[in-house]
Amino acid sequence: MTYCVGLMLNNGLVFMSDTRTNSGVDNISTFRKMFTWHTPNERCITLLTAGNLATTQAVVSLLDERIKDPGDRNPGILEAKSMFQVATLVGKLLRDVIASNAQTGQSADATFNATMILGGQIGEGAPRLFMIYPEGNFIEASFDTPFFQIGETKYGRPILVRAYAPEMSFEDAIKLLLVSFDSTIKANLSVSLPLDVHVYEKDSLVLGRVYRVQPDDPYFDQISTGWGVALRSAFSELPAFRFPDAEC
Amino acid sequence: MTYCVGLMLNNGLVFMSDTRTNSGVDNISTFRKMFTWHTPNERCITLLTAGNLATTQAVVSLLDERIKDPGDRNPGILEAKSMFQVATLVGKLLRDVIASNAQTGQSADATFNATMILGGQIGEGAPRLFMIYPEGNFIEASFDTPFFQIGETKYGRPILVRAYAPEMSFEDAIKLLLVSFDSTIKANLSVSLPLDVHVYEKDSLVLGRVYRVQPDDPYFDQISTGWGVALRSAFSELPAFRFPDAEC
Repeated sequence: MTYCVGLMLNNGLVFMSDTRTNSGVDNISTFRKMFTWHTPNERCITLLTAGNLATTQAVVSLLDERIKDPGDRNPGILEAKSMFQVATLVGKLLRDVIASNAQTGQSADATFNATMILGGQIGEGAPRLFMIYPEGNFIEASFDTPFFQIGETKYGRPILVRAYAPEMSFEDAIKLLLVSFDSTIKANLSVSLPLDVHVYEKDSLVLGRVYRVQPDDPYFDQISTGWGVALRSAFSELPAFRFPDAEC
Repeated sequence: MTYCVGLMLNNGLVFMSDTRTNSGVDNISTFRKMFTWHTPNERCITLLTAGNLATTQAVVSLLDERIKDPGDRNPGILEAKSMFQVATLVGKLLRDVIASNAQTGQSADATFNATMILGGQIGEGAPRLFMIYPEGNFIEASFDTPFFQIGETKYGRPILVRAYAPEMSFEDAIKLLLVSFDSTIKANLSVSLPLDVHVYEKDSLVLGRVYRVQPDDPYFDQISTGWGVALRSAFSELPAFRFPDAEC
Protein backbone atom coordinates (compact mmCIF):
# COMPACT_ATOMS: atom_id res chain seq x y z
CA MET A 1 0.00 0.00 0.00
CA THR A 2 0.95 3.64 0.08
CA TYR A 3 -0.08 6.95 1.56
CA CYS A 4 0.19 10.21 -0.38
CA VAL A 5 -1.45 13.59 0.20
CA GLY A 6 -1.63 16.73 -1.93
CA LEU A 7 -2.78 19.89 -0.11
CA MET A 8 -3.86 23.14 -1.71
CA LEU A 9 -3.09 26.22 0.40
CA ASN A 10 -3.52 29.92 -0.26
CA ASN A 11 0.29 30.09 -0.54
CA GLY A 12 0.76 27.16 -2.86
CA LEU A 13 0.79 23.36 -2.89
CA VAL A 14 2.29 20.86 -0.45
CA PHE A 15 2.86 17.23 -1.37
CA MET A 16 3.90 14.33 0.85
CA SER A 17 4.35 10.64 0.02
CA ASP A 18 5.68 7.59 1.79
CA THR A 19 8.11 5.20 0.11
CA ARG A 20 7.05 1.70 1.11
CA THR A 21 5.93 -0.80 -1.48
CA ASN A 22 4.93 -4.33 -0.69
CA SER A 23 3.92 -7.46 -2.46
CA GLY A 24 2.72 -9.54 0.44
CA VAL A 25 4.09 -8.78 3.88
CA ASP A 26 7.42 -10.49 3.27
CA ASN A 27 8.44 -8.56 0.21
CA ILE A 28 8.76 -4.91 1.12
CA SER A 29 10.92 -2.33 -0.60
CA THR A 30 11.53 1.39 -0.70
CA PHE A 31 10.53 3.23 -3.87
CA ARG A 32 10.05 6.91 -4.51
CA LYS A 33 6.41 7.78 -5.26
CA MET A 34 6.89 11.52 -5.81
CA PHE A 35 8.06 12.82 -9.18
CA THR A 36 8.65 16.40 -10.28
CA TRP A 37 9.19 18.06 -13.64
CA HIS A 38 9.95 21.74 -14.07
CA THR A 39 11.07 24.40 -16.52
CA PRO A 40 12.31 27.29 -14.38
CA ASN A 41 10.11 30.40 -14.46
CA GLU A 42 7.62 28.63 -16.69
CA ARG A 43 6.15 25.56 -14.96
CA CYS A 44 6.50 23.12 -12.07
CA ILE A 45 4.59 19.81 -11.94
CA THR A 46 4.44 17.18 -9.18
CA LEU A 47 3.01 13.66 -9.43
CA LEU A 48 2.25 11.30 -6.51
CA THR A 49 1.49 7.67 -7.27
CA ALA A 50 -0.34 4.83 -5.50
CA GLY A 51 -1.15 1.37 -6.75
CA ASN A 52 0.63 -1.17 -8.90
CA LEU A 53 4.33 -0.23 -9.01
CA ALA A 54 4.90 -1.56 -12.54
CA THR A 55 2.01 0.62 -13.75
CA THR A 56 3.14 3.81 -12.02
CA GLN A 57 6.78 3.35 -13.04
CA ALA A 58 5.72 2.77 -16.65
CA VAL A 59 3.67 5.97 -16.63
CA VAL A 60 6.57 7.99 -15.20
CA SER A 61 9.04 6.46 -17.67
CA LEU A 62 6.74 7.26 -20.59
CA LEU A 63 6.38 10.85 -19.37
CA ASP A 64 10.19 11.09 -19.16
CA GLU A 65 10.72 9.57 -22.61
CA ARG A 66 8.39 12.02 -24.28
CA ILE A 67 10.31 14.89 -22.71
CA LYS A 68 13.63 13.52 -23.98
CA ASP A 69 12.29 12.98 -27.50
CA PRO A 70 10.99 16.35 -28.67
CA GLY A 71 10.33 14.83 -32.13
CA ASP A 72 7.51 12.76 -30.62
CA ARG A 73 4.16 13.66 -32.12
CA ASN A 74 2.56 13.59 -28.67
CA PRO A 75 3.28 16.67 -26.59
CA GLY A 76 5.06 15.98 -23.27
CA ILE A 77 4.10 17.45 -19.96
CA LEU A 78 6.76 20.16 -20.41
CA GLU A 79 4.96 21.31 -23.57
CA ALA A 80 1.31 21.05 -22.52
CA LYS A 81 -0.25 24.50 -22.32
CA SER A 82 -2.20 24.08 -19.09
CA MET A 83 -2.43 21.87 -16.01
CA PHE A 84 -5.71 20.56 -17.41
CA GLN A 85 -3.84 19.34 -20.50
CA VAL A 86 -1.18 17.75 -18.28
CA ALA A 87 -3.87 15.93 -16.29
CA THR A 88 -5.54 14.74 -19.50
CA LEU A 89 -2.22 13.48 -20.81
CA VAL A 90 -1.26 11.67 -17.59
CA GLY A 91 -4.76 10.19 -17.30
CA LYS A 92 -4.63 8.85 -20.85
CA LEU A 93 -1.18 7.32 -20.30
CA LEU A 94 -2.32 5.74 -17.04
CA ARG A 95 -5.38 4.19 -18.66
CA ASP A 96 -3.32 2.92 -21.62
CA VAL A 97 -0.67 1.33 -19.40
CA ILE A 98 -3.31 -0.43 -17.29
CA ALA A 99 -5.19 -1.59 -20.39
CA SER A 100 -2.01 -3.00 -21.94
CA ASN A 101 -1.48 -5.26 -18.92
CA ALA A 102 -5.06 -6.14 -17.97
CA GLN A 103 -6.86 -8.74 -20.03
CA THR A 104 -10.05 -8.20 -18.15
CA GLY A 105 -10.73 -4.55 -18.87
CA GLN A 106 -11.21 -1.80 -16.33
CA SER A 107 -12.50 -2.53 -12.89
CA ALA A 108 -12.07 -0.71 -9.62
CA ASP A 109 -10.02 -3.44 -7.98
CA ALA A 110 -7.99 -4.70 -10.94
CA THR A 111 -4.46 -5.81 -10.08
CA PHE A 112 -2.73 -3.35 -12.38
CA ASN A 113 -4.66 -0.30 -11.19
CA ALA A 114 -3.09 2.89 -9.91
CA THR A 115 -4.33 6.28 -8.75
CA MET A 116 -2.37 9.54 -8.90
CA ILE A 117 -2.35 13.03 -7.46
CA LEU A 118 -1.10 15.69 -9.88
CA GLY A 119 -0.45 19.29 -8.96
CA GLY A 120 1.43 22.28 -10.26
CA GLN A 121 1.31 25.55 -12.08
CA ILE A 122 2.00 26.59 -15.67
CA GLY A 123 2.64 30.17 -16.83
CA GLU A 124 -0.12 32.56 -15.87
CA GLY A 125 -2.57 29.85 -14.84
CA ALA A 126 -3.38 29.32 -11.16
CA PRO A 127 -1.88 26.40 -9.20
CA ARG A 128 -4.12 23.37 -9.69
CA LEU A 129 -4.44 20.01 -7.97
CA PHE A 130 -6.00 16.88 -9.52
CA MET A 131 -6.74 13.31 -8.54
CA ILE A 132 -6.44 10.95 -11.51
CA TYR A 133 -8.33 7.64 -11.53
CA PRO A 134 -7.24 4.36 -13.17
CA GLU A 135 -9.92 4.95 -15.82
CA GLY A 136 -7.96 8.03 -16.91
CA ASN A 137 -10.52 10.63 -15.83
CA PHE A 138 -9.84 13.04 -12.99
CA ILE A 139 -11.30 15.50 -10.49
CA GLU A 140 -9.89 18.83 -9.38
CA ALA A 141 -9.48 20.17 -5.86
CA SER A 142 -11.57 23.18 -4.99
CA PHE A 143 -12.27 25.51 -2.12
CA ASP A 144 -14.69 22.92 -0.71
CA THR A 145 -12.37 19.93 -1.10
CA PRO A 146 -8.90 21.37 -0.90
CA PHE A 147 -6.85 18.19 -0.53
CA PHE A 148 -6.59 14.72 -1.99
CA GLN A 149 -5.35 11.51 -0.41
CA ILE A 150 -4.49 8.27 -2.18
CA GLY A 151 -3.56 4.80 -0.88
CA GLU A 152 -4.22 4.03 2.78
CA THR A 153 -6.26 7.17 3.39
CA LYS A 154 -8.54 6.48 6.33
CA TYR A 155 -6.34 6.48 9.44
CA GLY A 156 -4.85 9.88 8.62
CA ARG A 157 -8.04 11.56 7.47
CA PRO A 158 -9.67 12.71 10.74
CA ILE A 159 -6.81 15.05 11.67
CA LEU A 160 -6.72 16.52 8.14
CA VAL A 161 -10.46 17.16 8.24
CA ARG A 162 -10.19 18.75 11.70
CA ALA A 163 -6.99 20.82 11.48
CA TYR A 164 -6.53 21.82 7.82
CA ALA A 165 -7.01 25.48 6.99
CA PRO A 166 -6.24 27.01 3.57
CA GLU A 167 -4.45 29.95 5.17
CA MET A 168 -1.99 27.82 7.13
CA SER A 169 1.75 28.30 6.59
CA PHE A 170 3.89 25.76 4.74
CA GLU A 171 5.53 24.84 8.04
CA ASP A 172 2.14 24.16 9.69
CA ALA A 173 1.01 22.17 6.65
CA ILE A 174 4.09 19.95 6.88
CA LYS A 175 3.49 19.50 10.61
CA LEU A 176 -0.13 18.54 9.88
CA LEU A 177 0.89 16.07 7.19
CA LEU A 178 3.49 14.50 9.50
CA VAL A 179 0.80 13.95 12.15
CA SER A 180 -1.49 12.41 9.52
CA PHE A 181 1.33 10.18 8.21
CA ASP A 182 2.33 9.21 11.75
CA SER A 183 -1.22 8.03 12.54
CA THR A 184 -1.21 5.98 9.35
CA ILE A 185 2.26 4.50 9.91
CA LYS A 186 1.32 3.53 13.49
CA ALA A 187 -1.73 1.62 12.23
CA ASN A 188 -0.60 0.14 8.93
CA LEU A 189 2.56 -1.84 8.19
CA SER A 190 2.35 -1.06 4.48
CA VAL A 191 3.04 2.66 4.94
CA SER A 192 6.48 3.70 6.16
CA LEU A 193 9.29 6.23 6.30
CA PRO A 194 11.20 7.77 4.60
CA LEU A 195 8.71 10.41 3.47
CA ASP A 196 9.16 12.73 0.50
CA VAL A 197 8.00 16.34 0.71
CA HIS A 198 7.68 19.00 -1.97
CA VAL A 199 6.51 22.51 -1.14
CA TYR A 200 5.56 24.53 -4.19
CA GLU A 201 5.21 28.26 -3.62
CA LYS A 202 2.40 29.87 -5.60
CA ASP A 203 3.52 31.84 -8.67
CA SER A 204 7.19 30.91 -8.13
CA LEU A 205 7.16 28.65 -11.22
CA VAL A 206 10.31 26.91 -9.99
CA LEU A 207 10.89 23.68 -8.11
CA GLY A 208 10.14 24.40 -4.45
CA ARG A 209 11.70 22.93 -1.39
CA VAL A 210 12.19 19.19 -1.76
CA TYR A 211 12.90 17.34 1.43
CA ARG A 212 13.12 13.74 2.62
CA VAL A 213 12.09 12.78 6.17
CA GLN A 214 14.42 9.90 7.08
CA PRO A 215 13.50 7.15 9.57
CA ASP A 216 15.74 8.73 12.24
CA ASP A 217 14.49 12.29 11.65
CA PRO A 218 14.50 13.96 15.09
CA TYR A 219 11.59 16.27 14.24
CA PHE A 220 9.40 13.38 13.10
CA ASP A 221 10.25 11.55 16.36
CA GLN A 222 9.23 14.67 18.31
CA ILE A 223 5.93 14.85 16.41
CA SER A 224 5.24 11.14 16.79
CA THR A 225 5.93 11.08 20.53
CA GLY A 226 4.47 14.53 21.15
CA TRP A 227 1.25 13.73 19.32
CA GLY A 228 0.57 10.71 21.52
CA VAL A 229 1.06 12.86 24.63
CA ALA A 230 -0.94 15.77 23.16
CA LEU A 231 -3.82 13.47 22.17
CA ARG A 232 -4.03 11.94 25.63
CA SER A 233 -3.92 15.36 27.21
CA ALA A 234 -6.58 16.74 24.81
CA PHE A 235 -8.69 13.68 25.57
CA SER A 236 -8.40 14.14 29.33
CA GLU A 237 -9.49 17.76 29.01
CA LEU A 238 -12.76 16.85 27.32
CA PRO A 239 -15.71 16.97 29.69
CA ALA A 240 -16.20 13.71 31.61
CA PHE A 241 -19.01 11.36 30.72
CA ARG A 242 -21.68 10.76 33.37
CA PHE A 243 -24.25 8.02 33.20
CA PRO A 244 -27.70 9.51 32.64
CA ASP A 245 -28.89 8.08 35.96
CA ALA A 246 -25.81 9.21 37.88
CA GLU A 247 -27.77 11.42 40.25
CA CYS A 248 -30.06 8.58 41.32
CA MET B 1 -21.40 -0.26 6.78
CA THR B 2 -21.19 -0.25 10.56
CA TYR B 3 -18.84 0.57 13.38
CA CYS B 4 -18.72 -1.49 16.58
CA VAL B 5 -16.08 -1.71 19.30
CA GLY B 6 -15.66 -4.05 22.26
CA LEU B 7 -13.15 -2.94 24.92
CA MET B 8 -11.71 -5.07 27.69
CA LEU B 9 -10.90 -3.12 30.85
CA ASN B 10 -9.63 -4.20 34.24
CA ASN B 11 -13.11 -3.36 35.57
CA GLY B 12 -15.11 -5.18 32.92
CA LEU B 13 -16.23 -4.87 29.31
CA VAL B 14 -17.56 -1.89 27.36
CA PHE B 15 -19.42 -2.28 24.08
CA MET B 16 -20.53 0.39 21.62
CA SER B 17 -22.26 0.05 18.26
CA ASP B 18 -23.81 2.40 15.74
CA THR B 19 -27.23 1.72 14.18
CA ARG B 20 -26.98 2.68 10.53
CA THR B 21 -27.45 0.11 7.83
CA ASN B 22 -27.31 0.89 4.15
CA SER B 23 -27.85 -0.83 0.87
CA GLY B 24 -26.47 1.78 -1.47
CA VAL B 25 -26.47 5.41 -0.39
CA ASP B 26 -30.17 5.97 -0.98
CA ASN B 27 -31.46 3.13 1.17
CA ILE B 28 -30.42 3.77 4.75
CA SER B 29 -32.15 2.54 7.87
CA THR B 30 -31.67 2.28 11.60
CA PHE B 31 -31.19 -1.19 13.07
CA ARG B 32 -29.90 -2.26 16.43
CA LYS B 33 -26.56 -4.11 16.16
CA MET B 34 -26.09 -4.81 19.87
CA PHE B 35 -27.80 -7.81 21.49
CA THR B 36 -27.63 -9.00 25.07
CA TRP B 37 -28.67 -12.20 26.83
CA HIS B 38 -28.43 -12.72 30.55
CA THR B 39 -29.40 -14.96 33.44
CA PRO B 40 -29.07 -12.82 36.56
CA ASN B 41 -26.19 -13.81 38.87
CA GLU B 42 -25.12 -16.49 36.41
CA ARG B 43 -24.14 -15.00 33.04
CA CYS B 44 -24.29 -11.92 30.84
CA ILE B 45 -23.48 -12.07 27.11
CA THR B 46 -23.25 -9.26 24.55
CA LEU B 47 -23.06 -9.60 20.76
CA LEU B 48 -22.15 -6.84 18.28
CA THR B 49 -22.74 -7.46 14.58
CA ALA B 50 -21.37 -6.05 11.33
CA GLY B 51 -22.01 -7.16 7.78
CA ASN B 52 -25.01 -8.47 5.91
CA LEU B 53 -28.12 -7.59 7.91
CA ALA B 54 -30.10 -10.67 6.83
CA THR B 55 -27.23 -12.86 8.04
CA THR B 56 -26.80 -11.14 11.42
CA GLN B 57 -30.56 -11.03 12.08
CA ALA B 58 -30.84 -14.72 11.23
CA VAL B 59 -28.05 -15.59 13.66
CA VAL B 60 -29.66 -13.55 16.44
CA SER B 61 -33.10 -15.06 15.76
CA LEU B 62 -31.68 -18.59 15.83
CA LEU B 63 -29.95 -17.83 19.13
CA ASP B 64 -33.27 -16.57 20.52
CA GLU B 65 -35.24 -19.57 19.23
CA ARG B 66 -32.92 -22.05 20.86
CA ILE B 67 -33.36 -20.26 24.18
CA LYS B 68 -37.17 -20.40 23.88
CA ASP B 69 -37.14 -24.08 22.98
CA PRO B 70 -35.33 -25.87 25.80
CA GLY B 71 -36.19 -29.22 24.18
CA ASP B 72 -33.80 -28.39 21.34
CA ARG B 73 -30.96 -30.89 21.17
CA ASN B 74 -28.49 -28.05 20.60
CA PRO B 75 -27.63 -26.14 23.76
CA GLY B 76 -28.45 -22.43 23.64
CA ILE B 77 -26.15 -19.66 24.76
CA LEU B 78 -27.91 -19.56 28.13
CA GLU B 79 -26.93 -23.20 28.69
CA ALA B 80 -23.36 -23.23 27.35
CA LYS B 81 -20.87 -23.80 30.14
CA SER B 82 -18.24 -21.24 29.15
CA MET B 83 -17.73 -18.18 26.99
CA PHE B 84 -15.56 -20.36 24.74
CA GLN B 85 -18.55 -22.66 24.15
CA VAL B 86 -20.76 -19.63 23.42
CA ALA B 87 -18.22 -18.35 20.88
CA THR B 88 -18.02 -21.78 19.25
CA LEU B 89 -21.83 -21.97 19.06
CA VAL B 90 -22.23 -18.46 17.60
CA GLY B 91 -19.38 -19.06 15.14
CA LYS B 92 -20.95 -22.28 13.90
CA LEU B 93 -24.37 -20.64 13.50
CA LEU B 94 -22.81 -17.71 11.63
CA ARG B 95 -20.96 -20.03 9.25
CA ASP B 96 -24.08 -22.11 8.65
CA VAL B 97 -26.29 -19.09 7.93
CA ILE B 98 -23.76 -17.70 5.46
CA ALA B 99 -23.34 -21.10 3.80
CA SER B 100 -27.10 -21.53 3.43
CA ASN B 101 -27.31 -18.29 1.40
CA ALA B 102 -24.04 -18.35 -0.49
CA GLN B 103 -23.77 -20.57 -3.55
CA THR B 104 -20.13 -19.76 -3.98
CA GLY B 105 -18.71 -20.96 -0.69
CA GLN B 106 -16.71 -18.94 1.77
CA SER B 107 -14.68 -15.99 0.63
CA ALA B 108 -13.53 -12.90 2.49
CA ASP B 109 -15.70 -10.50 0.50
CA ALA B 110 -18.81 -12.60 -0.04
CA THR B 111 -22.10 -10.68 -0.05
CA PHE B 112 -23.64 -12.57 2.83
CA ASN B 113 -20.66 -12.26 5.15
CA ALA B 114 -20.77 -10.88 8.65
CA THR B 115 -18.32 -10.42 11.51
CA MET B 116 -19.19 -10.29 15.20
CA ILE B 117 -17.78 -9.23 18.53
CA LEU B 118 -18.86 -11.40 21.45
CA GLY B 119 -18.14 -10.66 25.08
CA GLY B 120 -19.37 -11.58 28.50
CA GLN B 121 -18.87 -13.66 31.60
CA ILE B 122 -20.30 -16.98 32.79
CA GLY B 123 -20.20 -18.19 36.38
CA GLU B 124 -16.73 -18.32 37.84
CA GLY B 125 -14.96 -17.78 34.51
CA ALA B 126 -13.25 -14.48 33.76
CA PRO B 127 -14.86 -11.92 31.43
CA ARG B 128 -13.85 -12.77 27.87
CA LEU B 129 -14.01 -10.93 24.55
CA PHE B 130 -13.96 -12.58 21.11
CA MET B 131 -14.02 -11.56 17.47
CA ILE B 132 -15.89 -14.10 15.31
CA TYR B 133 -15.13 -14.37 11.61
CA PRO B 134 -17.57 -15.32 8.82
CA GLU B 135 -15.77 -18.66 8.58
CA GLY B 136 -16.98 -19.41 12.11
CA ASN B 137 -13.59 -19.36 13.82
CA PHE B 138 -12.66 -16.67 16.30
CA ILE B 139 -9.88 -14.94 18.19
CA GLU B 140 -9.84 -13.76 21.80
CA ALA B 141 -8.75 -10.39 23.17
CA SER B 142 -5.71 -10.44 25.42
CA PHE B 143 -3.51 -8.13 27.40
CA ASP B 144 -1.65 -7.25 24.19
CA THR B 145 -4.74 -6.67 22.05
CA PRO B 146 -7.42 -5.60 24.49
CA PHE B 147 -10.08 -4.37 22.06
CA PHE B 148 -11.76 -5.39 18.83
CA GLN B 149 -13.33 -3.23 16.14
CA ILE B 150 -15.59 -4.40 13.31
CA GLY B 151 -17.05 -2.57 10.32
CA GLU B 152 -15.56 0.79 9.35
CA THR B 153 -12.60 0.50 11.71
CA LYS B 154 -9.84 2.69 10.35
CA TYR B 155 -10.90 6.29 11.02
CA GLY B 156 -11.50 5.67 14.70
CA ARG B 157 -8.47 3.48 15.36
CA PRO B 158 -5.65 6.03 15.94
CA ILE B 159 -7.30 7.53 19.03
CA LEU B 160 -8.03 4.06 20.47
CA VAL B 161 -4.41 3.01 19.95
CA ARG B 162 -3.17 6.24 21.53
CA ALA B 163 -5.52 6.77 24.48
CA TYR B 164 -6.78 3.34 25.60
CA ALA B 165 -5.51 2.07 28.95
CA PRO B 166 -6.83 -1.09 30.64
CA GLU B 167 -7.12 0.70 33.99
CA MET B 168 -9.36 3.49 32.68
CA SER B 169 -12.78 3.99 34.27
CA PHE B 170 -16.03 3.09 32.50
CA GLU B 171 -16.77 6.79 32.10
CA ASP B 172 -13.40 7.42 30.43
CA ALA B 173 -13.86 4.37 28.21
CA ILE B 174 -17.23 5.70 27.01
CA LYS B 175 -15.68 9.11 26.38
CA LEU B 176 -12.89 7.44 24.39
CA LEU B 177 -15.35 5.40 22.35
CA LEU B 178 -17.46 8.49 21.64
CA VAL B 179 -14.38 10.27 20.29
CA SER B 180 -13.55 7.25 18.13
CA PHE B 181 -17.15 7.02 16.86
CA ASP B 182 -17.27 10.77 16.23
CA SER B 183 -14.14 10.59 14.03
CA THR B 184 -15.71 7.74 12.09
CA ILE B 185 -19.11 9.41 11.72
CA LYS B 186 -17.46 12.63 10.51
CA ALA B 187 -15.62 10.73 7.77
CA ASN B 188 -18.09 8.05 6.71
CA LEU B 189 -21.73 8.44 5.78
CA SER B 190 -22.47 4.78 6.47
CA VAL B 191 -21.88 5.08 10.23
CA SER B 192 -24.32 7.16 12.26
CA LEU B 193 -26.11 7.88 15.52
CA PRO B 194 -27.91 6.68 17.58
CA LEU B 195 -25.23 4.65 19.34
CA ASP B 196 -25.87 1.75 21.70
CA VAL B 197 -23.71 1.28 24.78
CA HIS B 198 -23.46 -1.60 27.23
CA VAL B 199 -21.14 -1.46 30.22
CA TYR B 200 -20.63 -4.83 31.86
CA GLU B 201 -19.05 -4.71 35.32
CA LYS B 202 -16.64 -7.56 36.01
CA ASP B 203 -18.03 -10.33 38.25
CA SER B 204 -21.47 -8.67 38.45
CA LEU B 205 -23.05 -11.43 36.29
CA VAL B 206 -26.01 -9.18 35.57
CA LEU B 207 -26.90 -6.94 32.68
CA GLY B 208 -24.90 -3.73 33.13
CA ARG B 209 -25.81 -0.23 32.18
CA VAL B 210 -27.44 -0.12 28.77
CA TYR B 211 -27.64 3.30 27.22
CA ARG B 212 -28.53 4.82 23.84
CA VAL B 213 -26.79 7.98 22.61
CA GLN B 214 -29.44 9.77 20.56
CA PRO B 215 -28.67 12.13 17.66
CA ASP B 216 -29.41 15.19 19.82
CA ASP B 217 -27.43 13.95 22.85
CA PRO B 218 -25.92 17.07 24.43
CA TYR B 219 -22.85 15.22 25.74
CA PHE B 220 -22.07 13.75 22.32
CA ASP B 221 -22.36 17.26 20.83
CA GLN B 222 -19.94 18.54 23.47
CA ILE B 223 -17.46 15.76 22.66
CA SER B 224 -17.80 16.25 18.93
CA THR B 225 -17.30 20.01 19.05
CA GLY B 226 -14.81 19.89 21.90
CA TRP B 227 -12.67 17.27 20.20
CA GLY B 228 -12.25 19.45 17.09
CA VAL B 229 -11.12 22.35 19.28
CA ALA B 230 -8.92 20.09 21.43
CA LEU B 231 -7.28 18.52 18.37
CA ARG B 232 -6.48 21.88 16.84
CA SER B 233 -5.10 23.11 20.15
CA ALA B 234 -3.02 19.93 20.64
CA PHE B 235 -1.78 20.34 17.08
CA SER B 236 -0.76 23.96 17.61
CA GLU B 237 1.19 23.02 20.72
CA LEU B 238 3.38 20.51 18.87
CA PRO B 239 6.83 21.92 18.08
CA ALA B 240 6.89 23.92 14.83
CA PHE B 241 8.47 22.47 11.73
CA ARG B 242 11.52 24.28 10.34
CA PHE B 243 13.00 23.62 6.95
CA PRO B 244 16.40 21.94 7.34
CA ASP B 245 18.08 24.85 5.57
CA ALA B 246 16.19 27.49 7.54
CA GLU B 247 19.36 28.96 9.02
CA CYS B 248 20.94 29.54 5.58
